[in-house]
Amino acid sequence: MTHAAVQFGTPLYVYDADVLSSRFAQLKRLFGQHFGVSYAVKANPNIELLRRMLPHVATFDVSSYKEVERALKAGCPADKITFSGPAKRDAEVRAAIAQGVGELVLESLAEAKSADFWAGEMGVRQSVLIRINPATGPRHFGVSFSGRASQFGIDEEVLDEAIDAVQSLKNLKLIGFHIYSGTNSLNPAAIAENFAIFIQLFRRAAVHADIRPEKLVFGSGFGLTYGGTEGPLDINAVAELALPLIDDLKSDPRFADAHCVLEMGRWLIGPAGWLLTGVVGEKHSRGVDMRLCDAGFNNHLAACGMMGTIIRRNWHMMNVSNPEGAEQKYTLVGPLCTTIDVLATDIMLPEVRVGDVIAIENSGAYGLTASPSRFISHPEPAEIVLAGNEMIDATESALNHWTDVDTTGRLRMAEIALKG
Amino acid sequence: MTHAAVQFGTPLYVYDADVLSSRFAQLKRLFGQHFGVSYAVKANPNIELLRRMLPHVATFDVSSYKEVERALKAGCPADKITFSGPAKRDAEVRAAIAQGVGELVLESLAEAKSADFWAGEMGVRQSVLIRINPATGPRHFGVSFSGRASQFGIDEEVLDEAIDAVQSLKNLKLIGFHIYSGTNSLNPAAIAENFAIFIQLFRRAAVHADIRPEKLVFGSGFGLTYGGTEGPLDINAVAELALPLIDDLKSDPRFADAHCVLEMGRWLIGPAGWLLTGVVGEKHSRGVDMRLCDAGFNNHLAACGMMGTIIRRNWHMMNVSNPEGAEQKYTLVGPLCTTIDVLATDIMLPEVRVGDVIAIENSGAYGLTASPSRFISHPEPAEIVLAGNEMIDATESALNHWTDVDTTGRLRMAEIALKG
Repeated sequence: MTHAAVQFGTPLYVYDADVLSSRFAQLKRLFGQHFGVSYAVKANPNIELLRRMLPHVATFDVSSYKEVERALKAGCPADKITFSGPAKRDAEVRAAIAQGVGELVLESLAEAKSADFWAGEMGVRQSVLIRINPATGPRHFGVSFSGRASQFGIDEEVLDEAIDAVQSLKNLKLIGFHIYSGTNSLNPAAIAENFAIFIQLFRRAAVHADIRPEKLVFGSGFGLTYGGTEGPLDINAVAELALPLIDDLKSDPRFADAHCVLEMGRWLIGPAGWLLTGVVGEKHSRGVDMRLCDAGFNNHLAACGMMGTIIRRNWHMMNVSNPEGAEQKYTLVGPLCTTIDVLATDIMLPEVRVGDVIAIENSGAYGLTASPSRFISHPEPAEIVLAGNEMIDATESALNHWTDVDTTGRLRMAEIALKG
Repeated sequence: MTHAAVQFGTPLYVYDADVLSSRFAQLKRLFGQHFGVSYAVKANPNIELLRRMLPHVATFDVSSYKEVERALKAGCPADKITFSGPAKRDAEVRAAIAQGVGELVLESLAEAKSADFWAGEMGVRQSVLIRINPATGPRHFGVSFSGRASQFGIDEEVLDEAIDAVQSLKNLKLIGFHIYSGTNSLNPAAIAENFAIFIQLFRRAAVHADIRPEKLVFGSGFGLTYGGTEGPLDINAVAELALPLIDDLKSDPRFADAHCVLEMGRWLIGPAGWLLTGVVGEKHSRGVDMRLCDAGFNNHLAACGMMGTIIRRNWHMMNVSNPEGAEQKYTLVGPLCTTIDVLATDIMLPEVRVGDVIAIENSGAYGLTASPSRFISHPEPAEIVLAGNEMIDATESALNHWTDVDTTGRLRMAEIALKG
C-alpha cells in the first residue's frame, strides 16, 4: 500500500480487505453459533466492498430502493435483502416488492398498508418484520433513542394494535421483529442490557402475534472510538454477557427456529478504512501552527465534527509519511473557503511537512458517501481496496478525481508507509 | 410554478430568476456608483444560474480550479475570474494561470512562490491580490473571523513583510487587496464598521506597497435570516453608512482609480431558492406529531442545522399545498436512517397532509452542492430555474432524480402554489 497515495493521488479512501475479513472472523468466532450478520449498506455502499462482504453476511440491510439496486449489483440475491427506512416512498415499496426483497421492515402502519396494496396488485405475499421502538433503554449506552418520540418503528406502547393491524393485511406475512434503538456504544454491559430489552419485547410481540418468529433482528450498536482516550469495545465481553440471553430465548420452543441477526455497520467496516489527505501547505497564524490539507468536510463530514456531534473531538490520525518525526501540535484545515473546514485542532502528530500524507483512521463507515462531495467543486477522492498485494480501484463517483497530483514533481509523497 | 413539484418530482430545488434579478437591481441602485459585484461561485455553482448572473457581475470569485472551469462553461471570460482559497494545489495554481484568470487571491507566501514559479514557466506576469486577515473586527457582526488564527489570508501583523516578499517576485504583479473577514451579518452598523477596518488596512497596504491599487475586494458579509424573528438586513442602511467611507477613500488620489468590488454569495442567491420536499408519511410518536419528508440532510445539510450551526433553529418554511390550513405544531424529519435527520422541530405550519409539499426558504445558497447527496443513495433533487412563465431544467447531477413520484397516483400534489 506504500504507493497508493502516489498512484491514485490524494485525497484517497483506502479500504483494507484483510481488516474487513478479520472483523467478520471475530464475529463468526464469538457470535456465529447464535447470530447471522446483517450489514447496513448505508455505512458504506461501495459495490466492491459489498461484493467482498457477501459470503459473510446473512442479509444486506438497505435503507433506500437505490440501495436495493446496489446490493443486487454486488451479486446479492433479492431474498437476502431487508429494506428498512422511516420514509419509504410508495414507489420504493412497490419496486422493492416487485424485485422480491426478502423482508420489508415496517416502520409505520401507513407503510404496511402501502406494502399490502402493492403485494396485492402483484399477487404475492410479502414477508415483513415490524420494527419496534422501545420505551426504555439502558443508561450509559452511547447514543440511545429508546423512550423518545421517533420516526423509527412502532412505539412499544401501541405495539399490540399495530401487530393486529399488520396481521389483518392479507398480502403481508409477519415473520418477525426488528429493533435498532441505539448506536455507537462502547459499553458491553449496556449492549447486553439493551439486548435483554429487545428479547423481552420480542417475546411479548411474538406471543401477541401468536407466531413462531422466523427472524429477529438485533440492532447491534457496537461502537468505535473516534478520538478520545477510551479503548475499543470489548466484544468478548459483549459475547459473554449477551449470548446466554440468546441461549435462554432459544430454549423457548416458540423461538427455537428463530434466526437471530446482528445488524452492523460501522463496527464492521469503519476500522477497515482510512482517508488519506495530502498536506498542501503550511501556515503560522497568530501562534497556531496550521497545515493546509487537500481533504476537508467535503470529503469527510464526520471527521470534521459536523455529523451529529455536539462536542468536536480530533479523530485518531497518523502522519504516514513521517511516523518517526518529533511530535508537535498542529491545527489541520481543509481546502474549503469556510472557517468551519477543520480536520483537527491542537492535535499532536509527528512533524508534518508539506507533501506529507495524513491518514484519518476509522473512516470506512460514514465517510465518502456521507460527505458533501460537490461542495466547492473539488474533484472527489478515489476509493481503493487493498487485498493482499493488490490495489483495486473501487472508485464509483462520476466526479473525476485527482490523478495529476504528482505530475508537477512538487509534491513529495514518496515515503508513504501506511502499513508498517 | 404551480406544477413544478408534480412535473419534476420532489425533492426539488427551485430558483426564481426574477428574485435574482431584483437582488442585482437593488445592489445596482444602492451601490452601483461605488462598487462592482463579485459573485462567490461556491454559494451556488449551477451553470444556468452563473449564466444568468454573468451580465450583472464584475467578476466571479472561485475557490477551486473546477470552479474556474464552471465559470468558463457559463461563458465567463477568464479575465473576469478571481481565484481565492486557502489550500490551492500547485496543479490548480498552474492550471489557473495557464487559463489566464484575472487575479489570483494570495492566501499565503507559499502560494505566491508557487504562482511566481508557474507564471515564470509560462512567461506571463500574473496579477495578484493579497488577502489580508485583519487583527480586529466589529463586535455584533454575526460570524467574524478577524483577530483569530486563520487559514485565510495574510495576518495584518505580518502584512508589510508579505507585501515586500510578493513584490520581490518578478512574475507577479500586485494590483490590489482582498479582505473577507466575516459572514452572514444582519447589522448594518457592524458591516460599515467592518468596511472602515478594511479601508484602513487597504490604505496602509497600498502605501507600504507604493501602488495605486487597481482593485479592492470587500467581502460583504451581507446576511440572511435563517429562522428566528430577526428582520432581514437593511441594505439601505448599509449603503447610507458605508458609501461615504468609499467616497472618502476615492477622494485620495492613490485610490481614485481603484475598482471597488463587493464579494457576495448568500445574500444574492439565497432568497432566490427553495427546496421543495414532499410529505411521504405521518406518524404520531409519544406526543409528537411527525411528518416524514422525502428530503433530509442529504439534500440540505444547512437547513438541518449541520453546517456550522451551534444552536439549531427551524428555517422558515411554507406548506405550499395548504397555505390556508389551520396552524399546528409539527416535527419534520427526512428519509434517512438516522435520528439526526431532522428538518424542523416543533414548527408551526398550516395543516400538513401526506402528499403536501413544504418549501424551505432561503435555500438558494449552500443548498444542494453543500449537502451529502450520496448518503443512503437516494436520487438527487432536480434543479429548475423559473424565468417568467418558463420552467428550465437546470439539473446537473449525474445522480438520477425522481421523476416517477406521481406515477403511482398515490401522492397528492395537485394543489401546489408556491407563488401566490
